[in-house]
Amino acid sequence: MKYPTTIQNLIECFQKLPGIGEKTAERLALSTLNFEQETIDVFSESLKNTKTKIKKCSRCNNLAEDDLCEICKDDSRDAKLLCVVESPKNIMLFEKLGTFHGYYHVIDGLISPLDGINPEDIHIPEMINRIREENIEEVILALKPSVEGETTSLYISKILDKSNILVSKIAHGVPLGADMDYVDSLTLELALENRKKISNDD
Amino acid sequence: MKYPTTIQNLIECFQKLPGIGEKTAERLALSTLNFEQETIDVFSESLKNTKTKIKKCSRCNNLAEDDLCEICKDDSRDAKLLCVVESPKNIMLFEKLGTFHGYYHVIDGLISPLDGINPEDIHIPEMINRIREENIEEVILALKPSVEGETTSLYISKILDKSNILVSKIAHGVPLGADMDYVDSLTLELALENRKKISNDD
Repeated sequence: MKYPTTIQNLIECFQKLPGIGEKTAERLALSTLNFEQETIDVFSESLKNTKTKIKKCSRCNNLAEDDLCEICKDDSRDAKLLCVVESPKNIMLFEKLGTFHGYYHVIDGLISPLDGINPEDIHIPEMINRIREENIEEVILALKPSVEGETTSLYISKILDKSNILVSKIAHGVPLGADMDYVDSLTLELALENRKKISNDD
Repeated sequence: MKYPTTIQNLIECFQKLPGIGEKTAERLALSTLNFEQETIDVFSESLKNTKTKIKKCSRCNNLAEDDLCEICKDDSRDAKLLCVVESPKNIMLFEKLGTFHGYYHVIDGLISPLDGINPEDIHIPEMINRIREENIEEVILALKPSVEGETTSLYISKILDKSNILVSKIAHGVPLGADMDYVDSLTLELALENRKKISNDD
């Protein structure tokens, strides 16, 4: 004996979401029965719109409803500054900070020769073209601190090395507020290597 | 700077689900971008259908797409046996067991004089009528082991006391596989009170 088809389908859909198991899916599906009509309409409509309305920004690959994303449309930002990230979600992290006022470029993954992912697969050449065409002066690489992330950062910086573009990488080290007991050894090694002299002069 | 409206709306909808915070909602909403068209269609349609297609079974209050739920439609079950539960979800728990072959009745909550919930509010009189009309012979109460649950069970059993109906309550005690260190004292008291003699005769 099962739930009515509608509920059964809904449970199965919820189960397709990351980290949602059978029991949680059941709870979530049943909870929608108490939603107001308006919420259901927006929920249902938005889901449909993810396929019809959402596309990639033609300039930076961010999520967009038009040809350009909201950030690329905003011409008050610093056009000389580009931050390279791995996903639209990472853009949001920087935007929540509110201190970065340049533009972004989302690459489609990280270089990983072992998985057969080459620079062309993640559209690095297109990004390099964009950087040159737009006369960008500084590129900040904000990729994941993993082997693949480092490889990708190194690859990009080597290509841009010949040009006059300043390439930097966000700092890696012990996060603020972290319990020193739980910092992994690689991070600690990196933090030690990149230690900064404390200046008492000013 | 925010996500496109579609994504923003979707995040807000996911946040209305129980136990889903801002970060999880963001992750879930973004994950739907990778769903196949078919999944999105089913998901979106099922959500809409919760409002239009799902109603309460006119006989037992279970979730139904027709006038009667799937269980009430099945006339191969034991019509003399009725299990009283608090929600359609509880019905599914019993159905997964597969050992109960009677019918169910879902009451709309539990009696709680402190919260102003009286037997009439949760439609106990209607259930009593059903029990009498259908000549049910045994009623199994499977309500939550709480003050409200016990009150409700007691109330129902008192009403049915005058008739010839056998009223029982599911057993409460230490669950199988439980670590004794973590069993709460009320459960332990109940388990002690309802101890069973171990028979070595058979």
